[in-house]
Amino acid sequence: MSGQPLFGQIAVVGVGLIGGSLALALKQAGEVTEVIGIGRGLKNLERAKALGVVDSYTQDLAAGVAEADLVFLATPVCSLAQVAGIALKAMKPGAILTDGGSVKGEVIAEIEPLLPDGIHFVPGHPIAGTENSGAEAAFATLYHERRCILTPTALTDAEALDRVARMWRIAGSDVVTMGAEKHDRILAAISHLPHMIAYTLVNAVGSYDRFEENILEFSAGGFRDFTRIASSDPTMWRDIALANQEALLEMLERYQRFLDELRQDIEAGNGQVLHDFFLRSKELRDAIL
Amino acid sequence: MSGQPLFGQIAVVGVGLIGGSLALALKQAGEVTEVIGIGRGLKNLERAKALGVVDSYTQDLAAGVAEADLVFLATPVCSLAQVAGIALKAMKPGAILTDGGSVKGEVIAEIEPLLPDGIHFVPGHPIAGTENSGAEAAFATLYHERRCILTPTALTDAEALDRVARMWRIAGSDVVTMGAEKHDRILAAISHLPHMIAYTLVNAVGSYDRFEENILEFSAGGFRDFTRIASSDPTMWRDIALANQEALLEMLERYQRFLDELRQDIEAGNGQVLHDFFLRSKELRDAIL
Repeated sequence: MSGQPLFGQIAVVGVGLIGGSLALALKQAGEVTEVIGIGRGLKNLERAKALGVVDSYTQDLAAGVAEADLVFLATPVCSLAQVAGIALKAMKPGAILTDGGSVKGEVIAEIEPLLPDGIHFVPGHPIAGTENSGAEAAFATLYHERRCILTPTALTDAEALDRVARMWRIAGSDVVTMGAEKHDRILAAISHLPHMIAYTLVNAVGSYDRFEENILEFSAGGFRDFTRIASSDPTMWRDIALANQEALLEMLERYQRFLDELRQDIEAGNGQVLHDFFLRSKELRDAIL
Repeated sequence: MSGQPLFGQIAVVGVGLIGGSLALALKQAGEVTEVIGIGRGLKNLERAKALGVVDSYTQDLAAGVAEADLVFLATPVCSLAQVAGIALKAMKPGAILTDGGSVKGEVIAEIEPLLPDGIHFVPGHPIAGTENSGAEAAFATLYHERRCILTPTALTDAEALDRVARMWRIAGSDVVTMGAEKHDRILAAISHLPHMIAYTLVNAVGSYDRFEENILEFSAGGFRDFTRIASSDPTMWRDIALANQEALLEMLERYQRFLDELRQDIEAGNGQVLHDFFLRSKELRDAIL
Protein backbone atom coordinates (compact mmCIF):
# COMPACT_ATOMS: atom_id res chain seq x y z
CA MET A 1 0.00 0.00 0.00
CA SER A 2 1.13 3.52 -0.73
CA GLY A 3 -0.86 6.61 0.11
CA GLN A 4 -4.57 6.49 0.72
CA PRO A 5 -6.46 3.17 0.76
CA LEU A 6 -8.77 2.41 -2.16
CA PHE A 7 -11.83 2.47 0.09
CA GLY A 8 -12.74 3.80 3.51
CA GLN A 9 -15.55 1.66 4.86
CA ILE A 10 -16.86 -1.29 2.90
CA ALA A 11 -19.86 -3.50 3.65
CA VAL A 12 -19.84 -7.18 2.77
CA VAL A 13 -23.28 -8.74 2.57
CA GLY A 14 -22.89 -12.47 3.10
CA VAL A 15 -19.69 -13.13 5.07
CA GLY A 16 -18.81 -16.56 3.68
CA LEU A 17 -16.03 -17.84 1.48
CA ILE A 18 -16.57 -15.27 -1.29
CA GLY A 19 -17.36 -12.17 0.76
CA GLY A 20 -14.98 -13.00 3.59
CA SER A 21 -12.04 -13.71 1.31
CA LEU A 22 -12.39 -10.36 -0.46
CA ALA A 23 -12.56 -8.60 2.93
CA LEU A 24 -9.39 -10.36 4.11
CA ALA A 25 -7.53 -9.59 0.88
CA LEU A 26 -8.36 -5.87 1.06
CA LYS A 27 -7.58 -5.66 4.78
CA GLN A 28 -4.23 -7.38 4.39
CA ALA A 29 -3.35 -5.04 1.52
CA GLY A 30 -4.26 -2.04 3.66
CA GLU A 31 -6.70 -0.92 0.99
CA VAL A 32 -9.75 -0.59 3.23
CA THR A 33 -10.21 1.30 6.50
CA GLU A 34 -13.08 -0.69 7.95
CA VAL A 35 -15.10 -3.76 6.95
CA ILE A 36 -18.68 -4.20 8.14
CA GLY A 37 -20.08 -7.71 7.80
CA ILE A 38 -23.80 -8.09 7.16
CA GLY A 39 -25.69 -11.36 7.31
CA ARG A 40 -28.58 -13.26 8.81
CA GLY A 41 -26.72 -15.78 10.95
CA LEU A 42 -25.43 -14.21 14.16
CA LYS A 43 -23.06 -17.07 14.91
CA ASN A 44 -21.29 -16.75 11.55
CA LEU A 45 -20.98 -12.97 12.00
CA GLU A 46 -19.48 -13.41 15.48
CA ARG A 47 -17.04 -15.93 14.11
CA ALA A 48 -16.13 -13.57 11.24
CA LYS A 49 -15.29 -10.85 13.74
CA ALA A 50 -13.33 -13.20 15.99
CA LEU A 51 -11.30 -14.31 12.96
CA GLY A 52 -10.63 -10.72 11.88
CA VAL A 53 -12.53 -11.15 8.63
CA VAL A 54 -14.71 -8.14 9.53
CA ASP A 55 -14.21 -5.29 11.98
CA SER A 56 -17.85 -5.10 13.01
CA TYR A 57 -21.13 -6.67 11.98
CA THR A 58 -24.87 -6.20 11.90
CA GLN A 59 -27.93 -8.16 10.88
CA ASP A 60 -29.57 -4.91 9.78
CA LEU A 61 -28.85 -4.58 6.06
CA ALA A 62 -29.99 -0.95 5.67
CA ALA A 63 -28.03 0.24 8.70
CA GLY A 64 -24.95 -1.73 7.72
CA VAL A 65 -24.59 -0.27 4.23
CA ALA A 66 -25.46 3.35 5.14
CA GLU A 67 -21.90 4.67 5.49
CA ALA A 68 -20.09 2.28 3.15
CA ASP A 69 -18.09 3.51 0.15
CA LEU A 70 -18.54 0.09 -1.43
CA VAL A 71 -21.10 -2.63 -0.82
CA PHE A 72 -20.21 -6.14 -2.02
CA LEU A 73 -23.14 -8.53 -2.37
CA ALA A 74 -21.95 -12.11 -1.82
CA THR A 75 -25.30 -13.80 -1.29
CA PRO A 76 -26.91 -16.51 -3.47
CA VAL A 77 -27.79 -15.46 -7.04
CA CYS A 78 -31.55 -15.67 -6.46
CA SER A 79 -31.36 -13.29 -3.49
CA LEU A 80 -29.22 -10.58 -5.11
CA ALA A 81 -32.05 -8.41 -6.48
CA GLN A 82 -33.95 -8.46 -3.20
CA VAL A 83 -30.86 -7.63 -1.15
CA ALA A 84 -29.86 -4.93 -3.63
CA GLY A 85 -33.33 -3.40 -3.42
CA ILE A 86 -32.95 -2.84 0.32
CA ALA A 87 -29.29 -1.81 0.18
CA LEU A 88 -29.73 0.74 -2.62
CA LYS A 89 -32.34 2.67 -0.64
CA ALA A 90 -29.93 3.05 2.27
CA MET A 91 -26.60 3.65 0.55
CA LYS A 92 -24.99 7.09 0.52
CA PRO A 93 -24.54 9.16 -2.67
CA GLY A 94 -21.41 8.25 -4.63
CA ALA A 95 -21.22 4.75 -3.13
CA ILE A 96 -20.64 1.70 -5.30
CA LEU A 97 -22.66 -1.50 -5.29
CA THR A 98 -21.02 -4.60 -6.75
CA ASP A 99 -21.76 -8.30 -6.60
CA GLY A 100 -20.20 -11.72 -7.12
CA GLY A 101 -23.12 -13.51 -8.72
CA SER A 102 -22.30 -16.28 -11.18
CA VAL A 103 -25.08 -15.21 -13.56
CA LYS A 104 -25.05 -11.64 -14.81
CA GLY A 105 -27.77 -10.93 -17.36
CA GLU A 106 -30.74 -11.60 -15.11
CA VAL A 107 -29.09 -9.97 -12.09
CA ILE A 108 -28.43 -6.78 -14.08
CA ALA A 109 -31.96 -6.75 -15.48
CA GLU A 110 -33.35 -6.93 -11.96
CA ILE A 111 -30.98 -4.51 -10.22
CA GLU A 112 -30.44 -1.68 -12.72
CA PRO A 113 -34.07 -0.48 -12.64
CA LEU A 114 -33.71 -0.07 -8.86
CA LEU A 115 -30.63 2.21 -9.03
CA PRO A 116 -31.09 5.66 -7.45
CA ASP A 117 -29.25 8.61 -9.00
CA GLY A 118 -25.68 8.91 -7.78
CA ILE A 119 -25.24 5.29 -6.70
CA HIS A 120 -23.16 3.14 -9.02
CA PHE A 121 -23.63 -0.53 -9.80
CA VAL A 122 -20.74 -2.62 -11.16
CA PRO A 123 -21.80 -6.22 -11.91
CA GLY A 124 -19.00 -8.71 -11.33
CA HIS A 125 -18.12 -12.35 -11.01
CA PRO A 126 -14.89 -13.54 -9.40
CA ILE A 127 -14.33 -17.06 -10.74
CA ALA A 128 -13.03 -18.74 -7.63
CA GLY A 129 -14.24 -21.03 -4.91
CA THR A 130 -13.57 -24.07 -2.81
CA GLU A 131 -15.83 -26.77 -1.45
CA ASN A 132 -16.03 -24.96 1.91
CA SER A 133 -18.41 -22.27 3.07
CA GLY A 134 -18.91 -19.86 5.95
CA ALA A 135 -16.63 -17.20 7.43
CA GLU A 136 -14.17 -19.85 8.56
CA ALA A 137 -13.59 -20.89 4.96
CA ALA A 138 -12.45 -17.40 3.94
CA PHE A 139 -8.77 -16.77 3.18
CA ALA A 140 -6.93 -13.78 1.78
CA THR A 141 -5.46 -15.52 -1.27
CA LEU A 142 -8.64 -17.12 -2.65
CA TYR A 143 -8.61 -14.75 -5.62
CA HIS A 144 -4.90 -14.93 -6.39
CA GLU A 145 -4.34 -15.66 -10.08
CA ARG A 146 -8.04 -16.27 -10.61
CA ARG A 147 -10.07 -14.52 -13.24
CA CYS A 148 -12.63 -11.91 -12.27
CA ILE A 149 -15.13 -10.95 -14.96
CA LEU A 150 -16.78 -7.54 -14.77
CA THR A 151 -19.82 -6.96 -16.99
CA PRO A 152 -20.49 -3.23 -17.22
CA THR A 153 -23.53 -1.96 -19.09
CA ALA A 154 -24.30 1.33 -20.84
CA LEU A 155 -25.35 2.68 -17.44
CA THR A 156 -22.14 1.75 -15.60
CA ASP A 157 -20.07 4.66 -14.31
CA ALA A 158 -16.52 4.48 -15.74
CA GLU A 159 -14.82 5.58 -12.53
CA ALA A 160 -16.78 3.11 -10.42
CA LEU A 161 -15.86 0.35 -12.87
CA ASP A 162 -12.22 1.35 -12.60
CA ARG A 163 -12.27 1.26 -8.80
CA VAL A 164 -13.91 -2.17 -8.69
CA ALA A 165 -11.39 -3.46 -11.23
CA ARG A 166 -8.56 -2.10 -9.06
CA MET A 167 -10.13 -3.80 -6.03
CA TRP A 168 -10.06 -7.20 -7.70
CA ARG A 169 -6.53 -6.67 -8.92
CA ILE A 170 -5.48 -5.86 -5.36
CA ALA A 171 -7.10 -9.17 -4.35
CA GLY A 172 -4.81 -10.84 -6.89
CA SER A 173 -7.23 -11.41 -9.75
CA ASP A 174 -6.83 -11.09 -13.48
CA VAL A 175 -9.69 -8.73 -14.34
CA VAL A 176 -11.53 -9.15 -17.64
CA THR A 177 -14.37 -6.98 -18.88
CA MET A 178 -17.08 -8.23 -21.22
CA GLY A 179 -20.81 -8.01 -21.83
CA ALA A 180 -23.17 -9.90 -19.54
CA GLU A 181 -24.49 -12.06 -22.36
CA LYS A 182 -21.01 -13.26 -23.25
CA HIS A 183 -20.22 -13.91 -19.61
CA ASP A 184 -23.36 -15.95 -19.19
CA ARG A 185 -22.65 -18.08 -22.26
CA ILE A 186 -19.08 -18.72 -21.22
CA LEU A 187 -20.12 -19.68 -17.71
CA ALA A 188 -22.90 -21.86 -19.08
CA ALA A 189 -20.29 -23.71 -21.13
CA ILE A 190 -17.46 -24.11 -18.63
CA SER A 191 -19.37 -24.36 -15.36
CA HIS A 192 -23.16 -24.66 -15.53
CA LEU A 193 -23.30 -27.32 -18.26
CA PRO A 194 -20.64 -29.51 -16.55
CA HIS A 195 -22.69 -29.39 -13.35
CA MET A 196 -25.84 -30.46 -15.22
CA ILE A 197 -23.87 -33.29 -16.84
CA ALA A 198 -22.42 -34.53 -13.55
CA TYR A 199 -25.79 -34.42 -11.79
CA THR A 200 -27.37 -36.32 -14.69
CA LEU A 201 -24.65 -38.95 -14.87
CA VAL A 202 -24.90 -39.76 -11.16
CA ASN A 203 -28.69 -39.94 -11.37
CA ALA A 204 -28.73 -42.12 -14.49
CA VAL A 205 -26.11 -44.53 -13.18
CA GLY A 206 -27.18 -44.49 -9.54
CA SER A 207 -30.78 -45.40 -10.36
CA TYR A 208 -29.90 -48.31 -12.67
CA ASP A 209 -31.61 -51.21 -10.94
CA ARG A 210 -30.89 -54.26 -13.06
CA PHE A 211 -28.40 -55.65 -10.53
CA GLU A 212 -28.89 -56.29 -6.84
CA GLU A 213 -26.04 -53.94 -5.91
CA ASN A 214 -26.01 -50.26 -6.78
CA ILE A 215 -23.57 -49.78 -9.68
CA LEU A 216 -22.09 -46.77 -7.90
CA GLU A 217 -20.56 -49.14 -5.34
CA PHE A 218 -18.13 -50.16 -8.06
CA SER A 219 -17.02 -46.64 -8.83
CA ALA A 220 -13.31 -46.05 -8.52
CA GLY A 221 -11.28 -42.88 -8.15
CA GLY A 222 -11.84 -41.70 -11.71
CA PHE A 223 -15.61 -41.72 -11.41
CA ARG A 224 -15.46 -40.06 -8.02
CA ASP A 225 -13.29 -37.25 -9.34
CA PHE A 226 -15.46 -36.83 -12.41
CA THR A 227 -18.66 -36.57 -10.39
CA ARG A 228 -17.33 -34.47 -7.50
CA ILE A 229 -19.38 -31.46 -8.64
CA ALA A 230 -22.56 -33.54 -8.37
CA SER A 231 -22.19 -33.03 -4.61
CA SER A 232 -22.75 -29.28 -5.03
CA ASP A 233 -25.57 -27.48 -3.26
CA PRO A 234 -28.91 -28.32 -4.98
CA THR A 235 -30.55 -25.01 -4.08
CA MET A 236 -27.70 -22.96 -5.50
CA TRP A 237 -27.71 -24.94 -8.73
CA ARG A 238 -31.48 -24.80 -9.12
CA ASP A 239 -31.15 -21.01 -8.90
CA ILE A 240 -28.27 -20.83 -11.37
CA ALA A 241 -30.02 -23.14 -13.87
CA LEU A 242 -33.09 -20.92 -13.81
CA ALA A 243 -31.24 -17.59 -13.72
CA ASN A 244 -29.06 -18.55 -16.68
CA GLN A 245 -31.76 -20.55 -18.44
CA GLU A 246 -31.31 -19.23 -21.96
CA ALA A 247 -27.53 -19.58 -22.22
CA LEU A 248 -27.56 -22.92 -20.43
CA LEU A 249 -30.20 -24.29 -22.81
CA GLU A 250 -28.15 -23.14 -25.80
CA MET A 251 -25.07 -24.97 -24.53
CA LEU A 252 -27.05 -28.01 -23.42
CA GLU A 253 -28.65 -28.37 -26.85
CA ARG A 254 -25.28 -28.00 -28.51
CA TYR A 255 -23.83 -30.69 -26.25
CA GLN A 256 -26.81 -32.97 -26.93
CA ARG A 257 -26.29 -32.63 -30.69
CA PHE A 258 -22.64 -33.68 -30.32
CA LEU A 259 -23.64 -36.56 -28.05
CA ASP A 260 -26.28 -37.76 -30.52
CA GLU A 261 -23.67 -37.86 -33.25
CA LEU A 262 -21.27 -39.75 -31.03
CA ARG A 263 -23.95 -42.31 -30.19
CA GLN A 264 -24.71 -42.79 -33.87
CA ASP A 265 -21.03 -43.30 -34.61
CA ILE A 266 -20.76 -45.92 -31.86
CA GLU A 267 -23.90 -47.63 -33.17
CA ALA A 268 -22.56 -47.63 -36.71
CA GLY A 269 -19.10 -48.77 -35.61
CA ASN A 270 -17.40 -45.79 -37.27
CA GLY A 271 -13.98 -46.43 -35.77
CA GLN A 272 -12.13 -43.75 -37.70
CA VAL A 273 -14.74 -41.09 -36.90
CA LEU A 274 -14.66 -42.04 -33.21
CA HIS A 275 -10.88 -41.91 -33.15
CA ASP A 276 -10.83 -38.48 -34.77
CA PHE A 277 -13.51 -37.17 -32.42
CA PHE A 278 -11.59 -38.37 -29.34
CA LEU A 279 -8.32 -37.03 -30.75
CA ARG A 280 -9.88 -33.62 -31.36
CA SER A 281 -11.10 -33.53 -27.74
CA LYS A 282 -7.69 -34.54 -26.49
CA GLU A 283 -6.00 -31.81 -28.51
CA LEU A 284 -8.49 -29.17 -27.36
CA ARG A 285 -8.13 -30.32 -23.75
CA ASP A 286 -4.35 -30.57 -23.79
CA ALA A 287 -4.16 -27.03 -25.15
CA ILE A 288 -5.72 -25.66 -21.94
CA LEU A 289 -3.67 -27.74 -19.49
CA MET B 1 5.40 -65.66 1.63
CA SER B 2 5.39 -69.04 3.28
CA GLY B 3 6.29 -72.26 1.53
CA GLN B 4 6.19 -72.52 -2.25
CA PRO B 5 5.51 -69.49 -4.43
CA LEU B 6 2.13 -69.32 -6.18
CA PHE B 7 3.78 -69.53 -9.61
CA GLY B 8 7.11 -70.61 -11.01
CA GLN B 9 7.65 -68.72 -14.25
CA ILE B 10 5.13 -66.19 -15.48
CA ALA B 11 5.06 -64.32 -18.76
CA VAL B 12 3.77 -60.78 -18.98
CA VAL B 13 2.75 -59.71 -22.47
CA GLY B 14 2.88 -55.92 -22.60
CA VAL B 15 5.29 -54.65 -19.94
CA GLY B 16 3.68 -51.31 -19.17
CA LEU B 17 1.87 -49.89 -16.18
CA ILE B 18 -0.62 -52.76 -15.88
CA GLY B 19 1.62 -55.72 -16.70
CA GLY B 20 4.71 -54.35 -15.03
CA SER B 21 2.95 -53.48 -11.80
CA LEU B 22 1.56 -57.01 -11.44
CA ALA B 23 5.04 -58.41 -12.06
CA LEU B 24 6.55 -56.15 -9.40
CA ALA B 25 3.85 -56.98 -6.86
CA LEU B 26 4.33 -60.74 -7.31
CA LYS B 27 8.12 -60.47 -7.26
CA GLN B 28 8.13 -58.39 -4.09
CA ALA B 29 5.78 -60.88 -2.44
CA GLY B 30 8.09 -63.73 -3.44
CA GLU B 31 5.17 -65.43 -5.17
CA VAL B 32 6.85 -65.92 -8.53
CA THR B 33 10.17 -67.51 -9.40
CA GLU B 34 10.81 -65.76 -12.71
CA VAL B 35 9.11 -63.11 -14.81
CA ILE B 36 9.56 -63.01 -18.58
CA GLY B 37 8.56 -59.77 -20.26
CA ILE B 38 7.20 -59.94 -23.79
CA GLY B 39 6.60 -56.95 -26.03
CA ARG B 40 7.28 -55.31 -29.35
CA GLY B 41 9.40 -52.37 -28.23
CA LEU B 42 12.96 -53.42 -27.41
CA LYS B 43 13.78 -50.23 -25.56
CA ASN B 44 10.87 -50.64 -23.16
CA LEU B 45 11.82 -54.28 -22.53
CA GLU B 46 15.43 -53.31 -21.80
CA ARG B 47 14.23 -50.63 -19.42
CA ALA B 48 11.91 -53.14 -17.72
CA LYS B 49 14.82 -55.47 -17.09
CA ALA B 50 17.08 -52.67 -15.87
CA LEU B 51 14.36 -51.60 -13.42
CA GLY B 52 13.88 -55.16 -12.17
CA VAL B 53 10.30 -55.31 -13.44
CA VAL B 54 11.17 -58.47 -15.42
CA ASP B 55 14.00 -60.99 -15.10
CA SER B 56 14.35 -61.54 -18.82
CA TYR B 57 12.55 -60.53 -21.98
CA THR B 58 11.87 -61.47 -25.55
CA GLN B 59 10.07 -60.04 -28.56
CA ASP B 60 9.09 -63.58 -29.59
CA LEU B 61 5.65 -64.19 -28.12
CA ALA B 62 5.49 -67.95 -28.76
CA ALA B 63 8.96 -68.56 -27.33
CA GLY B 64 8.31 -66.33 -24.34
CA VAL B 65 5.16 -68.07 -23.14
CA ALA B 66 6.32 -71.65 -23.78
CA GLU B 67 7.46 -72.47 -20.23
CA ALA B 68 5.23 -70.12 -18.26
CA ASP B 69 2.82 -71.37 -15.58
CA LEU B 70 0.79 -68.20 -16.09
CA VAL B 71 0.58 -65.77 -19.01
CA PHE B 72 -0.85 -62.33 -18.30
CA LEU B 73 -2.04 -60.38 -21.34
CA ALA B 74 -1.72 -56.66 -20.68
CA THR B 75 -2.00 -55.36 -24.23
CA PRO B 76 -4.76 -53.10 -25.68
CA VAL B 77 -8.27 -54.61 -25.73
CA CYS B 78 -8.40 -54.83 -29.51
CA SER B 79 -5.20 -56.86 -29.63
CA LEU B 80 -6.05 -59.43 -26.95
CA ALA B 81 -7.64 -62.06 -29.20
CA GLN B 82 -4.80 -61.95 -31.69
CA VAL B 83 -2.13 -62.16 -29.01
CA ALA B 84 -4.03 -64.95 -27.25
CA GLY B 85 -4.27 -66.89 -30.51
CA ILE B 86 -0.50 -67.01 -30.82
CA ALA B 87 0.16 -67.58 -27.11
CA LEU B 88 -2.34 -70.42 -26.72
CA LYS B 89 -0.65 -72.45 -29.43
CA ALA B 90 2.69 -72.22 -27.61
CA MET B 91 1.67 -72.56 -23.95
CA LYS B 92 2.37 -75.76 -22.02
CA PRO B 93 -0.40 -78.07 -20.73
CA GLY B 94 -1.87 -76.95 -17.39
CA ALA B 95 -0.79 -73.34 -17.88
CA ILE B 96 -3.18 -70.46 -17.21
CA LEU B 97 -3.92 -67.55 -19.54
CA THR B 98 -5.43 -64.44 -18.00
CA ASP B 99 -5.86 -60.86 -19.14
CA GLY B 100 -6.51 -57.36 -17.89
CA GLY B 101 -8.83 -56.11 -20.62
CA SER B 102 -11.41 -53.50 -19.65
CA VAL B 103 -14.11 -55.16 -21.78
CA LYS B 104 -14.87 -58.81 -21.11
CA GLY B 105 -17.79 -60.11 -23.20
CA GLU B 106 -16.21 -59.60 -26.60
CA VAL B 107 -12.76 -60.72 -25.41
CA ILE B 108 -14.19 -63.98 -24.03
CA ALA B 109 -16.21 -64.59 -27.20
CA GLU B 110 -13.05 -64.25 -29.25
CA ILE B 111 -10.62 -66.16 -27.03
CA GLU B 112 -12.64 -69.13 -25.71
CA PRO B 113 -13.07 -70.79 -29.13
CA LEU B 114 -9.25 -70.75 -29.46
CA LEU B 115 -8.59 -72.64 -26.19
CA PRO B 116 -6.70 -75.93 -26.58
CA ASP B 117 -7.51 -78.76 -24.17
CA GLY B 118 -5.63 -78.49 -20.89
CA ILE B 119 -4.95 -74.76 -21.04
CA HIS B 120 -7.09 -72.59 -18.80
CA PHE B 121 -8.39 -69.11 -19.50
CA VAL B 122 -9.45 -66.80 -16.65
CA PRO B 123 -10.81 -63.47 -17.92
CA GLY B 124 -10.05 -60.58 -15.59
CA HIS B 125 -9.99 -56.84 -15.17
CA PRO B 126 -8.01 -55.09 -12.46
CA ILE B 127 -9.65 -51.68 -12.04
CA ALA B 128 -6.58 -49.52 -11.56
CA GLY B 129 -4.45 -47.15 -13.53
CA THR B 130 -2.64 -43.86 -13.59
CA GLU B 131 -2.04 -41.35 -16.34
CA ASN B 132 1.41 -42.81 -17.02
CA SER B 133 2.44 -45.66 -19.28
CA GLY B 134 5.44 -47.83 -20.08
CA ALA B 135 7.63 -50.01 -17.86
CA GLU B 136 8.87 -46.97 -15.96
CA ALA B 137 5.33 -46.22 -14.80
CA ALA B 138 4.97 -49.61 -13.10
CA PHE B 139 4.98 -49.84 -9.31
CA ALA B 140 4.30 -52.69 -6.91
CA THR B 141 1.39 -51.08 -5.09
CA LEU B 142 -0.73 -50.06 -8.08
CA TYR B 143 -3.34 -52.69 -7.20
CA HIS B 144 -3.43 -52.09 -3.46
CA GLU B 145 -7.01 -51.71 -2.29
CA ARG B 146 -8.27 -51.63 -5.87
CA ARG B 147 -10.99 -53.89 -7.12
CA CYS B 148 -10.19 -56.69 -9.53
CA ILE B 149 -13.15 -58.24 -11.34
CA LEU B 150 -12.85 -61.80 -12.63
CA THR B 151 -15.50 -62.98 -15.09
CA PRO B 152 -15.39 -66.79 -15.30
CA THR B 153 -17.61 -68.61 -17.76
CA ALA B 154 -19.07 -72.13 -17.81
CA LEU B 155 -15.77 -73.26 -19.34
CA THR B 156 -13.50 -71.74 -16.68
CA ASP B 157 -11.50 -74.21 -14.59
CA ALA B 158 -12.27 -73.72 -10.88
CA GLU B 159 -8.70 -74.28 -9.72
CA ALA B 160 -7.30 -71.86 -12.30
CA LEU B 161 -9.87 -69.27 -11.24
CA ASP B 162 -8.82 -69.75 -7.63
CA ARG B 163 -5.14 -69.29 -8.42
CA VAL B 164 -5.74 -66.11 -10.42
CA ALA B 165 -7.93 -64.76 -7.60
CA ARG B 166 -5.12 -65.52 -5.12
CA MET B 167 -2.66 -63.76 -7.43
CA TRP B 168 -4.70 -60.54 -7.40
CA ARG B 169 -5.19 -60.72 -3.66
CA ILE B 170 -1.41 -61.03 -3.25
CA ALA B 171 -1.12 -57.88 -5.37
CA GLY B 172 -3.39 -56.19 -2.84
CA SER B 173 -6.70 -56.22 -4.70
CA ASP B 174 -10.23 -56.87 -3.54
CA VAL B 175 -11.29 -59.65 -5.93
CA VAL B 176 -14.91 -59.81 -7.11
CA THR B 177 -16.36 -62.45 -9.42
CA MET B 178 -19.29 -61.80 -11.75
CA GLY B 179 -20.53 -62.55 -15.24
CA ALA B 180 -18.96 -60.76 -18.18
CA GLU B 181 -22.22 -59.07 -19.15
CA LYS B 182 -22.60 -57.54 -15.71
CA HIS B 183 -18.96 -56.44 -15.73
CA ASP B 184 -19.39 -54.78 -19.09
CA ARG B 185 -22.51 -52.90 -18.01
CA ILE B 186 -20.91 -51.70 -14.81
CA LEU B 187 -17.79 -50.54 -16.62
CA ALA B 188 -19.90 -48.87 -19.29
CA ALA B 189 -21.64 -46.92 -16.53
CA ILE B 190 -18.74 -45.92 -14.31
CA SER B 191 -15.94 -45.60 -16.84
CA HIS B 192 -16.83 -45.79 -20.52
CA LEU B 193 -19.84 -43.44 -20.41
CA PRO B 194 -17.95 -40.79 -18.37
CA HIS B 195 -15.19 -40.83 -20.98
CA MET B 196 -17.71 -40.35 -23.80
CA ILE B 197 -19.29 -37.48 -21.85
CA ALA B 198 -15.98 -35.74 -21.21
CA TYR B 199 -14.86 -36.09 -24.83
CA THR B 200 -18.22 -34.70 -25.99
CA LEU B 201 -18.22 -31.78 -23.57
CA VAL B 202 -14.75 -30.65 -24.64
CA ASN B 203 -15.67 -30.96 -28.30
CA ALA B 204 -18.98 -29.13 -27.95
CA VAL B 205 -17.53 -26.28 -25.90
CA GLY B 206 -14.18 -26.10 -27.65
CA SER B 207 -15.75 -25.71 -31.09
CA TYR B 208 -18.21 -22.97 -30.07
CA ASP B 209 -17.20 -20.13 -32.36
CA ARG B 210 -19.50 -17.25 -31.57
CA PHE B 211 -16.75 -15.32 -29.78
CA GLU B 212 -13.33 -14.36 -31.03
CA GLU B 213 -11.62 -16.22 -28.18
CA ASN B 214 -11.98 -19.95 -27.61
CA ILE B 215 -14.31 -20.43 -24.65
CA LEU B 216 -11.93 -23.02 -23.25
CA GLU B 217 -9.46 -20.22 -22.50
CA PHE B 218 -11.79 -19.19 -19.69
CA SER B 219 -11.91 -22.61 -18.10
CA ALA B 220 -10.85 -22.70 -14.47
CA GLY B 221 -9.72 -25.54 -12.24
CA GLY B 222 -13.16 -27.13 -11.98
CA PHE B 223 -13.55 -27.56 -15.73
CA ARG B 224 -10.01 -28.84 -16.07
CA ASP B 225 -10.55 -31.48 -13.41
CA PHE B 226 -13.88 -32.47 -14.89
CA THR B 227 -12.46 -32.92 -18.37
CA ARG B 228 -9.13 -34.53 -17.41
CA ILE B 229 -10.25 -37.88 -18.88
CA ALA B 230 -10.81 -36.21 -22.26
CA SER B 231 -7.02 -36.29 -22.57
CA SER B 232 -7.07 -40.10 -22.66
CA ASP B 233 -5.64 -42.05 -25.55
CA PRO B 234 -8.03 -41.82 -28.57
CA THR B 235 -7.05 -45.21 -30.00
CA MET B 236 -7.66 -47.03 -26.73
CA TRP B 237 -11.06 -45.40 -26.32
CA ARG B 238 -12.09 -46.05 -29.89
CA ASP B 239 -11.37 -49.73 -29.22
CA ILE B 240 -13.23 -49.78 -25.91
CA ALA B 241 -16.26 -47.98 -27.37
CA LEU B 242 -16.49 -50.54 -30.15
CA ALA B 243 -15.67 -53.60 -28.01
CA ASN B 244 -18.27 -52.68 -25.40
CA GLN B 245 -20.72 -51.21 -27.91
CA GLU B 246 -23.92 -52.82 -26.64
CA ALA B 247 -23.53 -52.03 -22.94
CA LEU B 248 -22.20 -48.56 -23.68
CA LEU B 249 -25.17 -47.77 -25.92
CA GLU B 250 -27.58 -48.95 -23.23
CA MET B 251 -26.00 -46.63 -20.66
CA LEU B 252 -25.64 -43.77 -23.13
CA GLU B 253 -29.33 -43.95 -24.05
CA ARG B 254 -30.30 -44.08 -20.40
CA TYR B 255 -28.16 -41.01 -19.70
CA GLN B 256 -29.64 -39.20 -22.71
CA ARG B 257 -33.18 -39.83 -21.43
CA PHE B 258 -32.27 -38.33 -18.06
CA LEU B 259 -30.60 -35.37 -19.78
CA ASP B 260 -33.65 -34.77 -21.98
CA GLU B 261 -35.84 -34.63 -18.91
CA LEU B 262 -33.48 -32.24 -17.20
CA ARG B 263 -33.46 -29.95 -20.25
CA GLN B 264 -37.24 -29.95 -20.32
CA ASP B 265 -37.36 -29.07 -16.62
CA ILE B 266 -34.95 -26.19 -17.17
CA GLU B 267 -37.03 -25.01 -20.14
CA ALA B 268 -40.25 -25.21 -18.14
CA GLY B 269 -38.66 -23.54 -15.12
CA ASN B 270 -39.61 -26.45 -12.83
CA GLY B 271 -37.60 -25.24 -9.85
CA GLN B 272 -38.80 -27.86 -7.39
CA VAL B 273 -38.18 -30.72 -9.82
CA LEU B 274 -34.68 -29.40 -10.56
CA HIS B 275 -33.89 -29.05 -6.87
CA ASP B 276 -35.04 -32.60 -6.14
CA PHE B 277 -33.07 -33.97 -9.09
CA PHE B 278 -29.88 -32.23 -7.95
CA LEU B 279 -30.48 -33.28 -4.34
CA ARG B 280 -30.93 -36.89 -5.37
CA SER B 281 -27.62 -36.78 -7.29
CA LYS B 282 -25.90 -35.23 -4.32
CA GLU B 283 -27.21 -37.93 -1.98
CA LEU B 284 -26.22 -40.73 -4.37
CA ARG B 285 -22.78 -39.16 -4.84
CA ASP B 286 -22.15 -38.44 -1.18
CA ALA B 287 -23.00 -42.07 -0.35
CA ILE B 288 -19.98 -43.27 -2.37
CA LEU B 289 -17.50 -40.71 -1.06
